[in-house]
Amino acid sequence: MEPAHQHIQLTSNVAGLCILTGMGLVSTAFPAEALQKLRNGNLGIGHTRYSTSGNSELQNCQPFVVDTLHGEIAVAHNGELINAAALRKKVMRHGVGLSTSSDSELITQLLALTPPMEEVDAPDWVARIKNLMTETPTSYSLLVMFRDVVYAIRDPYGNRPLCIGRIVPISKLQSSGGGEGDTEGWVVSSESCSFQSIGARYYREVQPGEIVQISKHGVKTLSIVPRPEGDVPAFCIFEYVYFARPDSIFEGQMVYTVRQRCGRQLAIEAPTDADLVSTVPESATPAALGYAQQLGLPYVEVLCKNRYVGRTFIQPNTRLRQLGVAKKFGALTDNFAGKRIVLIDDSIVRGNTISPIIKLLKEAGAKEVHIRVASPPIRHPCYMGINIPTREELIANRPEFQDIAGYIGADSVKYLTVEGLLSAVQGGLASLHEKDEMISSNNKLSRRVGHCTACLTGKYPVELEW
Amino acid sequence: MEPAHQHIQLTSNVAGLCILTGMGLVSTAFPAEALQKLRNGNLGIGHTRYSTSGNSELQNCQPFVVDTLHGEIAVAHNGELINAAALRKKVMRHGVGLSTSSDSELITQLLALTPPMEEVDAPDWVARIKNLMTETPTSYSLLVMFRDVVYAIRDPYGNRPLCIGRIVPISKLQSSGGGEGDTEGWVVSSESCSFQSIGARYYREVQPGEIVQISKHGVKTLSIVPRPEGDVPAFCIFEYVYFARPDSIFEGQMVYTVRQRCGRQLAIEAPTDADLVSTVPESATPAALGYAQQLGLPYVEVLCKNRYVGRTFIQPNTRLRQLGVAKKFGALTDNFAGKRIVLIDDSIVRGNTISPIIKLLKEAGAKEVHIRVASPPIRHPCYMGINIPTREELIANRPEFQDIAGYIGADSVKYLTVEGLLSAVQGGLASLHEKDEMISSNNKLSRRVGHCTACLTGKYPVELEW
Amino acid sequence: MEPAHQHIQLTSNVAGLCILTGMGLVSTAFPAEALQKLRNGNLGIGHTRYSTSGNSELQNCQPFVVDTLHGEIAVAHNGELINAAALRKKVMRHGVGLSTSSDSELITQLLALTPPMEEVDAPDWVARIKNLMTETPTSYSLLVMFRDVVYAIRDPYGNRPLCIGRIVPISKLQSSGGGEGDTEGWVVSSESCSFQSIGARYYREVQPGEIVQISKHGVKTLSIVPRPEGDVPAFCIFEYVYFARPDSIFEGQMVYTVRQRCGRQLAIEAPTDADLVSTVPESATPAALGYAQQLGLPYVEVLCKNRYVGRTFIQPNTRLRQLGVAKKFGALTDNFAGKRIVLIDDSIVRGNTISPIIKLLKEAGAKEVHIRVASPPIRHPCYMGINIPTREELIANRPEFQDIAGYIGADSVKYLTVEGLLSAVQGGLASLHEKDEMISSNNKLSRRVGHCTACLTGKYPVELEW
Amino acid sequence: MEPAHQHIQLTSNVAGLCILTGMGLVSTAFPAEALQKLRNGNLGIGHTRYSTSGNSELQNCQPFVVDTLHGEIAVAHNGELINAAALRKKVMRHGVGLSTSSDSELITQLLALTPPMEEVDAPDWVARIKNLMTETPTSYSLLVMFRDVVYAIRDPYGNRPLCIGRIVPISKLQSSGGGEGDTEGWVVSSESCSFQSIGARYYREVQPGEIVQISKHGVKTLSIVPRPEGDVPAFCIFEYVYFARPDSIFEGQMVYTVRQRCGRQLAIEAPTDADLVSTVPESATPAALGYAQQLGLPYVEVLCKNRYVGRTFIQPNTRLRQLGVAKKFGALTDNFAGKRIVLIDDSIVRGNTISPIIKLLKEAGAKEVHIRVASPPIRHPCYMGINIPTREELIANRPEFQDIAGYIGADSVKYLTVEGLLSAVQGGLASLHEKDEMISSNNKLSRRVGHCTACLTGKYPVELEW
Repeated sequence: MEPAHQHIQLTSNVAGLCILTGMGLVSTAFPAEALQKLRNGNLGIGHTRYSTSGNSELQNCQPFVVDTLHGEIAVAHNGELINAAALRKKVMRHGVGLSTSSDSELITQLLALTPPMEEVDAPDWVARIKNLMTETPTSYSLLVMFRDVVYAIRDPYGNRPLCIGRIVPISKLQSSGGGEGDTEGWVVSSESCSFQSIGARYYREVQPGEIVQISKHGVKTLSIVPRPEGDVPAFCIFEYVYFARPDSIFEGQMVYTVRQRCGRQLAIEAPTDADLVSTVPESATPAALGYAQQLGLPYVEVLCKNRYVGRTFIQPNTRLRQLGVAKKFGALTDNFAGKRIVLIDDSIVRGNTISPIIKLLKEAGAKEVHIRVASPPIRHPCYMGINIPTREELIANRPEFQDIAGYIGADSVKYLTVEGLLSAVQGGLASLHEKDEMISSNNKLSRRVGHCTACLTGKYPVELEW
Repeated sequence: MEPAHQHIQLTSNVAGLCILTGMGLVSTAFPAEALQKLRNGNLGIGHTRYSTSGNSELQNCQPFVVDTLHGEIAVAHNGELINAAALRKKVMRHGVGLSTSSDSELITQLLALTPPMEEVDAPDWVARIKNLMTETPTSYSLLVMFRDVVYAIRDPYGNRPLCIGRIVPISKLQSSGGGEGDTEGWVVSSESCSFQSIGARYYREVQPGEIVQISKHGVKTLSIVPRPEGDVPAFCIFEYVYFARPDSIFEGQMVYTVRQRCGRQLAIEAPTDADLVSTVPESATPAALGYAQQLGLPYVEVLCKNRYVGRTFIQPNTRLRQLGVAKKFGALTDNFAGKRIVLIDDSIVRGNTISPIIKLLKEAGAKEVHIRVASPPIRHPCYMGINIPTREELIANRPEFQDIAGYIGADSVKYLTVEGLLSAVQGGLASLHEKDEMISSNNKLSRRVGHCTACLTGKYPVELEW
Repeated sequence: MEPAHQHIQLTSNVAGLCILTGMGLVSTAFPAEALQKLRNGNLGIGHTRYSTSGNSELQNCQPFVVDTLHGEIAVAHNGELINAAALRKKVMRHGVGLSTSSDSELITQLLALTPPMEEVDAPDWVARIKNLMTETPTSYSLLVMFRDVVYAIRDPYGNRPLCIGRIVPISKLQSSGGGEGDTEGWVVSSESCSFQSIGARYYREVQPGEIVQISKHGVKTLSIVPRPEGDVPAFCIFEYVYFARPDSIFEGQMVYTVRQRCGRQLAIEAPTDADLVSTVPESATPAALGYAQQLGLPYVEVLCKNRYVGRTFIQPNTRLRQLGVAKKFGALTDNFAGKRIVLIDDSIVRGNTISPIIKLLKEAGAKEVHIRVASPPIRHPCYMGINIPTREELIANRPEFQDIAGYIGADSVKYLTVEGLLSAVQGGLASLHEKDEMISSNNKLSRRVGHCTACLTGKYPVELEW
Repeated sequence: MEPAHQHIQLTSNVAGLCILTGMGLVSTAFPAEALQKLRNGNLGIGHTRYSTSGNSELQNCQPFVVDTLHGEIAVAHNGELINAAALRKKVMRHGVGLSTSSDSELITQLLALTPPMEEVDAPDWVARIKNLMTETPTSYSLLVMFRDVVYAIRDPYGNRPLCIGRIVPISKLQSSGGGEGDTEGWVVSSESCSFQSIGARYYREVQPGEIVQISKHGVKTLSIVPRPEGDVPAFCIFEYVYFARPDSIFEGQMVYTVRQRCGRQLAIEAPTDADLVSTVPESATPAALGYAQQLGLPYVEVLCKNRYVGRTFIQPNTRLRQLGVAKKFGALTDNFAGKRIVLIDDSIVRGNTISPIIKLLKEAGAKEVHIRVASPPIRHPCYMGINIPTREELIANRPEFQDIAGYIGADSVKYLTVEGLLSAVQGGLASLHEKDEMISSNNKLSRRVGHCTACLTGKYPVELEW
């Protein structure tokens, strides 16, 4: 399974309200210096969503910007409101027509509508945001921009990630630096990995339920909206398994490290008698290295990526379809001919990409190919923003799953257990929490450990009837 | 002055709600047959606006479609609400954010908002439309689509045109006809000229203030919202002068014929002692023919259009700019060398396109070039949807206008008077009204003659403070 | 029939060898001033060919540029070599592979090949050009560029047009002028109409068989290659009828004037008892005006061009095809309802565009529609560069031609005779020749009157077996 | 250094002469079955060249196709003729103009020119190819197509790779197979890695100097043109180091294996006292694994690729340029913080990409970063087809090279020696040769071991004055 990414990002140095929407990464931010000169400028929201499906469409572009009695507000949203249908009805009953099917427009109109707007100097946006958060429990990470303030908000369950970075001015980094283009400020993103490429550094996560205000006065926690008593956080466990870039940091842990622990755990749960351990490049590599280390087996590359896929004129004609050619990979034949391979994959969704890979390896001389999957079988739909195939398309729900090894042509297939995954993800959290200096004392509740495993277990963090 | 066009158009044969927005012409309609099969389908709104400025942008695309408590409504608008600012404030005070600056969204949200939506089977859209029409007097021609009904609406002043066409099934036209693709139904458009190209025929105009319902039951007048007592209609006189295609019909008259009458009237008001009458092709040709006929002078072509303008690699370098070359036209030298030309133009806005034409004719041997303009000088901005240059850019407001002939290099320049234009436009209406069989008796008030001449006289049809 | 254009053009002010090939107009030339500074620069060839077929393809782009022992030469060609097949074989027998099917490459390689290149300072390009002209009689107008010289060449029959324009410096035109971008020089083009738009003036035609050298030393006739004794010139008569822009000048006459004479001649040959004369805009307008003047009938417009054709979303579905809608035109109904129309067209090739126009006029109320065609029926293929449909597609060769009026739905159809066309074209030439001061005495032979009417008569200017 | 690829490829199933030129991969081939039906069809040449520079341009597209006295020939060329200038002069002296600067056109015209073409049934293309090979010693791998035959040719020094694959029909692979689209035949490519993705299998290399004929009769060696006595082959050693895909096979060895041996050899020559070995992904990974294995150090990933580079809106402004951000990579911080890293790169060309990577690692907490380069410094230009930067741009020729570690910010920098590289490349060849069953006895000379190391040593395989 090839990862796809979702991003909200805020960075620096755009004059005026600059809205860039589309497929890609967008940026703006908060240069302290410039904010002193410009009242309503130098803020911006960029937002991008990648769907997990192959063809990412340009649909319901973000951020959603509207003019209100008090000026323009812009809203970018990552996630999926679990009670969107009910909220849409509420807004429309008020007499508002909704021009898109996006949650971003819905959230924007909810913020504008309730309580009724008055011709005061400025509405209490924070009260409106809190009000919104009582009306919908999850799933959302939000950026709301109004004039010279941005609010960064994460739902009480912390289902989608959101973190803050700091742009360090060159003058503090280098003796030479400083001139044109230098800046300091703040940047907000779904993933910390995006900070480095714009010269920013990871500062901290936005906590579940937290409303953070970012302005020329800096970063300030305004409120932490609590979960219902007894509920634990529900950060999407598939960010660790699949979506996030390996150099991103969630809950104080590097994603790569968690994946490596998944590989080690998988080796404990499902060891194999084989000659070598390998990876479906590139996403399964940390798990493969962890698996190999745990069992003391050699890590050997057996596949190389075909960089020309998609640029070839060779159409997949009947013949090539019949052959079931593994287009994205080439076989490093001499590395494995005559050997027994344990091939680690990060996940198996539909089961139709792993099959030609196994065939390729066998035809090139592999003696055995054992598949070990560093996550449990996916069986349930996600109603919180992840584009998972329908229940029927998921291989784990189909009859072929009874003999999955035979179906995909492997000598054996084993998955990581849910418990194993949770222990790999949560094992490193206790100690980490102690050294995390960012967390204020009133935040302890929200940092209680908990992850959303709905797509694996069918246990959703809130009732679906919301 | 080169004409630009504005269109709203509705035609047939689209399954489901099909929205095409963009630069161009769009179409759909009402196949009686198909409507029996499909409940919510086979309706469509297409809308296009061309600005009078050269660079027509894709901005505020139409129609505007929103989801409401009772399903989707789609609104297409031609015109400009004279009290848009006040109405925007009203909508936003209700707590609605507006995502564009377009009147179409504003109208759409006004229709959804007031009176408050209720969860009845269907809202009374006609009452909502009437309510809207009491809140804004002009300028709008509207199409509102809800499920299987389209409402065609023209403001009480009839400022923007709107007319209905009938799609005649082939089976009624030909012995052979029928088959796949055959249809009957209705089509609504700003200009009747668009009917022929889709196989429809002009049926009638929508009257000022009229709300027409178009459905599988046919065309039906629902209401005629009256003007304030004493007010006359205010159909934009520049549709006759410049915007409309010459084969369009307004108020029962063909635009070409009105332009020809303008030319005749201009000949009466400003005759010229010359050898020949000619035109700035193509828009001024009917006026030029009328002028020539009235004075008994020969009509001769002196310019031909350069079809390659815009496709040439020859950039307008300093030299060509200094030469002031008339790029769009070639001189038919032998037709006028040594002769005195009366050149008819339909209008002079900024005065910078006629100047190189005169220079071209003089350099090619014209003895004299007299400019006669088949409309009065434009001096005032339009607040009702026509994109006229700023007051300062209008040549009639600038000091050079004192010696306009000298400024543009002509031997003389004369304009049609406002009275002359009105008599050319309204002269043919009395007799026409008698034979117009479409007009019901309760419609007599609204057919009282009257046209908007605000850009020429500064007299706007309603107070601008609305 | 809508005209298409063919152009070779050379203009000024390009530094270095600048080759622009593609669909469009290209330019360069000879600033006397700049030539003193740059040795090998400031020359350029631009060439464009528009095919008469609707879909003009980018094929065999011109000019063709090759590197030779003596440096680069560039060749642009308008026409079609009547003995191309034999010449291709000759070149290939020499061992040269031809990479395109274009005559331009063939001419370029012929110039390079024969006589054999030697390592002298520079080859005698003029001798090579003369040699080429003895090997192929027609049809070609050529520009050959080598270093700082351009040769403009027209074949001995003068089949394709070629004329020279002079770029007049602003300093000689205006008291103010002369700054950056000012220039003087020469420009060569197929049609004189292109001169005006670049600030140049018509200087003279290149004569049949003439080799003109253009360099910093000005324009100089190097040689006039004669035709076989007894042969007359064979300038393509369809340039007058159809291809050329009406403001172009050939053989001293303006194309518009010739077309007007064709209309007068047609009125003499085929008068009509009708109420009005009209045109298929815009190409037939001069003929229509001539026809009306000759018979003393009123000239009235009955059609207006639909500027939105091609920009409409309305696909030609079955229904519209069955209706046979005249998409490119709107009917000016009130101008002709109940009247008998004589409609002038410049030519009828396939007969499938005039038919819907007649239907449109009849449905809009025309009492009678008589078609008069200002040129004779086309019956034969052109082997000299004009893209005429195959013999079978030409309506004049098909059985329907027996009752052409019935076939296209007209009340009557009449064509201009070949003799009538020739008299309209050649009638004005005798007197013109006397006042033409450009013609040197040794050029008298080549100015003997003669035109190619092969597509009308089947009489080709040279044997096709060449 | 990121690899770029060069390909000539021939595959199956194109009807007629199908020429696809452009950036990408092209294909065609030889279905035995289809060849029986079609005489001149089912052959094709596809060719692609990627330059090593970042911006690969579409220039001098291949294959070059010309029409000759005996029909079309098509030539695709990989390499660069060392004596191209002299050969161009020879061709032009014959009177041929060359329309491009490509060697492909030059080769094509040389094949057509000498000896003189005669109107025989077909020329002796093989004699012409042999003649060409005596006129130019290197560097070329060629495909020449004429009617139903393709000739695959490699220069006597074997400088550029060329290999043959066999398309196996499904019917021989599967019990089910064989329907529409099934085929058997041959395919020729620069790299064997391309075979798998079209369902073909590696058959053998074309030997240095070999002319192979491929037709419906199969694959046949026609001739082996010898090198001058005493000369050894000169296969480009950089194909192993950098250009080729790791799953390609040259001289019987998998490229990945050679790179791994380079890493082992580098560990022997330049061992490091460090905590972990890592790679600049992805090209240096086999060398890094080899290095780690040789020294018994752990192999750990420290960088992950940023898939969004190039799709970000973040322009590299002054600030980001000053920061010297490593855009293409993210740091896997927790994997190396506080550790001493040996980072393996495959080559250092200009030295400006490794520098920000080292900075990134150090800022993320690396204690030491030692660079080990798995190839020697590049100091000399390549005249045989590889696009290497100018001598001045090569870091190894610049003063900074004296303190290369300081210049790029590393703790130490060491390169593989030329001897070390040669031993890594040639070490496995002796044994391989014995089991290579493809080599016929008369081929022993050409399989004498030898590689071109000109860019490293300045020793070119032939005199440059050729």
